[in-house]
Parts: sequence; C-alpha cells; structure tokens
Amino acid sequence: MTAEIIAIGDELLIGQTINTNAAWIGQECSKIGIRISRSIVVSDDELEILEAVDRALKDADLVLVTGGLGPTKDDITKHALCKYFNTKLVRDEATLKKIQTFFAQRNRPMLDANERQADLPESCTILPNKFGTAAGMWFEKGGSILVSMPGVPYEMKVIVTDELIPRIKERFTLQSIFHKTILTQGIGESFLAEQIFDWENKVRNAGLSLAYLPSPGMVKLRLTSNEGAFREKEIDSYFEELLDRFPEFIFGKENDTLPGVLHRMCIEHGLTMGTVESCTGGAIAQSIIGISGASQFFKGAFVTYANEIKTSLAGVNPESIEKYGAVSAEVAQEMVLGGLDQLEVDLCIATTGIMGPEGETENQQVGTVWVAIATKNTIQTKCFSFGDNRERNILMTVLSALNMARNVVNTNFIEKNKQ
Amino acid sequence: MTAEIIAIGDELLIGQTINTNAAWIGQECSKIGIRISRSIVVSDDELEILEAVDRALKDADLVLVTGGLGPTKDDITKHALCKYFNTKLVRDEATLKKIQTFFAQRNRPMLDANERQADLPESCTILPNKFGTAAGMWFEKGGSILVSMPGVPYEMKVIVTDELIPRIKERFTLQSIFHKTILTQGIGESFLAEQIFDWENKVRNAGLSLAYLPSPGMVKLRLTSNEGAFREKEIDSYFEELLDRFPEFIFGKENDTLPGVLHRMCIEHGLTMGTVESCTGGAIAQSIIGISGASQFFKGAFVTYANEIKTSLAGVNPESIEKYGAVSAEVAQEMVLGGLDQLEVDLCIATTGIMGPEGETENQQVGTVWVAIATKNTIQTKCFSFGDNRERNILMTVLSALNMARNVVNTNFIEKNKQ
Repeated sequence: MTAEIIAIGDELLIGQTINTNAAWIGQECSKIGIRISRSIVVSDDELEILEAVDRALKDADLVLVTGGLGPTKDDITKHALCKYFNTKLVRDEATLKKIQTFFAQRNRPMLDANERQADLPESCTILPNKFGTAAGMWFEKGGSILVSMPGVPYEMKVIVTDELIPRIKERFTLQSIFHKTILTQGIGESFLAEQIFDWENKVRNAGLSLAYLPSPGMVKLRLTSNEGAFREKEIDSYFEELLDRFPEFIFGKENDTLPGVLHRMCIEHGLTMGTVESCTGGAIAQSIIGISGASQFFKGAFVTYANEIKTSLAGVNPESIEKYGAVSAEVAQEMVLGGLDQLEVDLCIATTGIMGPEGETENQQVGTVWVAIATKNTIQTKCFSFGDNRERNILMTVLSALNMARNVVNTNFIEKNKQ
Repeated sequence: MTAEIIAIGDELLIGQTINTNAAWIGQECSKIGIRISRSIVVSDDELEILEAVDRALKDADLVLVTGGLGPTKDDITKHALCKYFNTKLVRDEATLKKIQTFFAQRNRPMLDANERQADLPESCTILPNKFGTAAGMWFEKGGSILVSMPGVPYEMKVIVTDELIPRIKERFTLQSIFHKTILTQGIGESFLAEQIFDWENKVRNAGLSLAYLPSPGMVKLRLTSNEGAFREKEIDSYFEELLDRFPEFIFGKENDTLPGVLHRMCIEHGLTMGTVESCTGGAIAQSIIGISGASQFFKGAFVTYANEIKTSLAGVNPESIEKYGAVSAEVAQEMVLGGLDQLEVDLCIATTGIMGPEGETENQQVGTVWVAIATKNTIQTKCFSFGDNRERNILMTVLSALNMARNVVNTNFIEKNKQ
C-alpha cells in the first residue's frame, strides 16, 4: 500500500512554518507498513490543490491531506474538496455539538467562524477531532482514499491515531517494510562508514539496505528489510555486533534520546542528578526535564552564566577564573564539584565554553568547550572543539555531555555492579 | 520566477528527519521574489528522482534539489543527475584540493569516500561548499536551471547564500512578492480573528492578502502584496493600527522572537536578568542564552526542580510549600524574590507548574502553571491553564512568561522613562 502526503499552505512554501506533520505521518505509516511514495506541499490555491489531489489519487492508494481547515478566511481546503468530489457543504449536527462543548468547557466565547466549521462535505465520512474544532474528512474515489485533516499538529495526530489508522487496519492487510535504527553520538558519518566498512558489506550482501542519517552531533544507522518483520532477529544480531565494537558511541535505538537513556539509567540505578551550566545555559537540564518522570532523579541546576555567579552559586574560586580563564578544565572541575556538593546529587554535569559567534580570545577559538562529569568518586574532564555556529555548538555540547555522562554511569555504576 | 524544491531521502519520507531545508529555502527565495510553486520529497530511488526532476524542470524556472550527496553508498543523487543530463563524473582537482584542506585543518584522516566526492558531473558548474565536502552543482536545460545541493542544512545554506542567490540575482530581474508579518502571544487564532474582523475586511478590500499562522502559544499575522515592496509603508500603517489596539499581545515582527525582543529591551534599558525555573527546567534561561550577546545582561538561573532545592537554593520557605503546594502563587512569588536577591538582577522570572502527563492532584489539573515576574519594586503573578501535552505546556509557559516579562519591562521601565 502506498500513500502520498499533500500539505496545503503558503506558510509552508514560504518557510514560515516547518512541515513537521509530514515527518510524523511518515513515521506512523511506516510502522504499519504503508510506504510513503511522495510528499508534496502546495499553496493555498484552489487550482493547485485540485491538481495535486487529482494526481495523487491516480498514483497512490491513500492520499493524506493536511492544512487549510481553520476557521479563518484563508483556509480553502474544504471548498476545494467539495468541488473535486462534486458535493456540497451541509451542517453536521454532531460536529456542531462537539464544537459547542469544546468552547463551553474552555469558558471561551463561540464565534460564527467556529460554528461554520460544522459545515462539512455531504459525501464524506466525518472523522471526529477530539482536540479541536476542524473535523477530519474521509473520501473515496476510484478505489483510492483521500483523508483531509487540520494542519495543527496535535489535532492532526489525534485524528490519525484514533480514526485513520484503525479504519485502515480494519480494511486492508498490510505487508510491512521493516526498519530498525541504532543511534550513535561522538563519531562522524565518514569515519563511522570507514570503521564499519566490512560490516556494511555484510549486511548489504544479506539483502538489507543501510542508511546513514546524520544530524548535528549524531549519526543514525538504519537497516531496512523489504520482506517484513520476520528478519528482525537477524537485524538485531547485526546491531549487537556493532554495539560490542562501539559501546561508547552507540547510545540507543529507534526513538531513544540521550536524555531518555540517561533518565532510564538514573532511575534503574537509583542515582540523583544535577547540572551546572554556563555555555549551555540550562539546555542540558531542560532536555532532561522535558521527559515526564524527571522529578524522580533530577534535583536541579545552576545556570552560572556570569563569572560572579559561577563564584557565588557554584563556589568557583575567583582566582581560578583569573588564572586559567572561565573556559578551562580547572573551572569546569570546580563547577561540577560545586554542583555535586550543593545540589547533593550522585552525578553532576558542568559545561563552560565559547559558543560564538563572538567571544574569541587570543588563546581560545569560538567552539572551545570544556565538559566535566563528576560522581562522588570520579571526575572526568574533556575538551571539545566545535564550530562557529552558536545554536549548533549548544546542541553539540548538550549531546556530547549527555553521552559522556552515560559512559560515566556505565563505567562507574553498571560495570561495577556486574563485578 | 517560480521555483520547485525537490528533497531526496527516504529518511524524510519515513519521518526520521524533518525537512527543515525546504522551509529555509522558501524563506530565502521569498525574500528575493522567487515564488515557490511546489515542494516535494521523493525517495532515494533513481527512477523517482528522474521523474521528479523531469516534471519540475518542465513546470518551474528553477529547481532546487537537496540531499543524497553524502560520501556513503546510499547517496545516489549525483549518479541520477549524470544520467538525466547525459554526462559523466570527472575528478575536479579544485574540489579535491578543498576536501584535502578541509580534512587537514581538522586533523582528521581523509578517506577514499571523501576523495570520491571530488568526482563531479562534467557538464555542471560547480558551486563550492565552504563547510563540507559535497559540492553544489548547477545544471541548465531547456531554459530552466537545476541546482543540486547537500542535505546537511548548514552546508546547503552556505551554498544558497554564497553561490546560488548571487548568480540568480546577476542573471534575472525579479519581481517581488512582498510579505510582512507581525507576531502575537497570548491570544488564540479565532478570538484574534473576531477582534480584528473590521481591520481584516479593510486590508482585504485594499487588495492585500492576510494569513493567520498559528503555532503553540503564538499567532503570526502575515500581509502579502503581489505588487512588490512599494506598498510597504501602507502595510506598516495597517500593522501600527493593530499595535495600538493590542500592545500586550503584539511582541514583534518578521523573525523576531520573544527572547530576542527581551534581549534588546534589557540591553537598551541597562537591565540585568535571571530566572528561577521549576516546571520549565531551564528552558527560559536557555532561550535567552541561545542568542549571542546574552552575557551582557543575563546573569544566571536556578533550576529548582526538587522541592528541597527550591528551599536550599531559592530560599523558599518549606512551610509555604507545605501550606499552599509547590504550584501556587505564594511559592512562585518566593521563588522569584529569592532569584532577584541571590542572582542580584533587576528582573527575574519564576515558573512552577504541573507539566504532565503525570502529576495531577485533587486540587490541580495537569497544565496548571504559575508564573511570577519581579523587579525591585513590583511583583506580578499569573496563573495559566494549559493542556495535557508536556512539551507543549513547557513551550507555552516559556512564551507566556517571556511575554509577561516584556510587558513588565514596558510598564515599569519604558513607560516610566517616557514620562
């Protein structure tokens, strides 16, 4: 079964909004064995919408349309679809009632524009939207299905999950494309490829396809089988082989994240954690707190951006800053020990660096970062040289620090427990 | 002039990577008056690439291709383009030298795969890539132009900025589509539309098009003129009118961000700033430090996630937590005053809330958040009721708190200075 995604909206074409919906739909479809053959973005223009819909319905079994269903005047998808499917809008009382309840629960006034969202094409099956006022619409034509959904991500998601996927599964027997992915941090794409050259040939000869998916600070390796999930164990054993060779770089699989992996490790081993962040400005703490349940192990953080705050909060000796500079192994160590002590945690991460584009000194380039990781018995310090891009440098520092912390926990808590 | 974007990569279709490149290219093209007519994602498959390229070259004046130029075996764009343009790969010595220098400067070993990146189609014009090893390629056919670029965002961006746009501007006289955007925080799309109904009719009658671009916690309003920049002053005056009516909601324009606006205000008025964050876990500090130059006014932050840390670091009275709960106006106030005092800042933001999905209590729903903003003479506290989604709740809290802080600075520092 193949699907095509059509996203409607000038805001996507001119780049004011990033099309995250297509990526999410791609993930959900892949999971159940629907292959996305193409993904397209067209403007809020009736002719372009009609042309894209017509072409997609001829090429794909399933066409998923997002966007253009809002209450405002620039949203025209519903009208274009009425024209294409030769039907008209009729007031749907069940949808109207849902919209009324939606506003009543939130104590918000209901507007005419919202009421008009209950006017839906007569020939479609309505897919209720639990989180908003724009319903989903399911049309059929010439053996293909078209589903139109709102562009607001969490509204689209609930319609896909609660309405679309159950209906597709009920109606079709899907043959699955099977993917598995492992995630690496701290090793570049080319260098990794060189290191696993023999392994890569082996998996390719076995009829699997391998993709390198680089993003800043990370490379994902994805193995794909077109013969479905029955090769899962074989794929797992290929990945196990890599994990044995590169335990420091490989931190997880599939949708794992470094904060998520560290979260699991801390809870499993009863460790508390905190951070003292200068150049990352709280980004490490934030990445950890972003995951529900962090209160079980994450106690807090200092963001010690100004030097006097490094001293007053984290107890860094002003003479160390004077002598070695704020971006130095010594200051990173004093920060991390200050955090370990004052936050009363088992594991602490500290960062200090020059994120750029300003801040270069005679001795230190932009992109220079010191990370320190401390436990009650150990302290590890490492210097990184990243690039010129501030946003990227912050992200690289967060990922590198979290991976260092993961390796410290592995070495100091898990391997010791094994002995 | 119209352009079509073709992004190549299974990782985009199956949603492992979000196509941020298309959004960025859309922004850059819009700025110089190139209209993106369509944006499409196809898989790493030669036939699909050839079909998409052929169709796009027939429809658009300019075709911008991203992805599939890496050193690894799954990258096939270069070979597909050789086939389409009926040319062959030849070693380009200038590119080879650049790649060699690239590796030498980074003290990294150069691999065969990297060397092969200097093999480029004979008939194309090579567009040098300052930040990586995959060069851009400029082809022409039947009056249309196709440019192939790597998928790594910052490499693609430098090729667009340094090579593509200057060449396009040199060769074509572009008629510009003119956009202007203002940004609101704290008012929903439908409610905003109802409030500005009269204004909306007026701008539409004047021949401008209006778009509402909602994202969590924000609504952007975009006015578009198809007659170019000469209507800029007229558009500005329409926006001025709105700003007079909704100064609390409208925080900026175009690519402004709330942290950026607050950054400018703090520097302009000589204010120092800090945060005490519980439920946002450092996200507010991080959003501020994300912008270069933050060290001029941002001193630091406490992330007081555990209750005992609220007490030990920010000086919150444990009895207040006991009596009112950690998520309360009283605790938010004590947090913000503790931060104002210990961070020695002019402006402090504090947050405490239940981000979900767990943590609901008898008296408090998930999504309940208290924000407090203090200056030396004032303290403002506000309760918000967001939804069930943790990520969204954190984002909504960050934006709401920053906008509250903006309004506090406006009221207490700027308006007073005016008097």
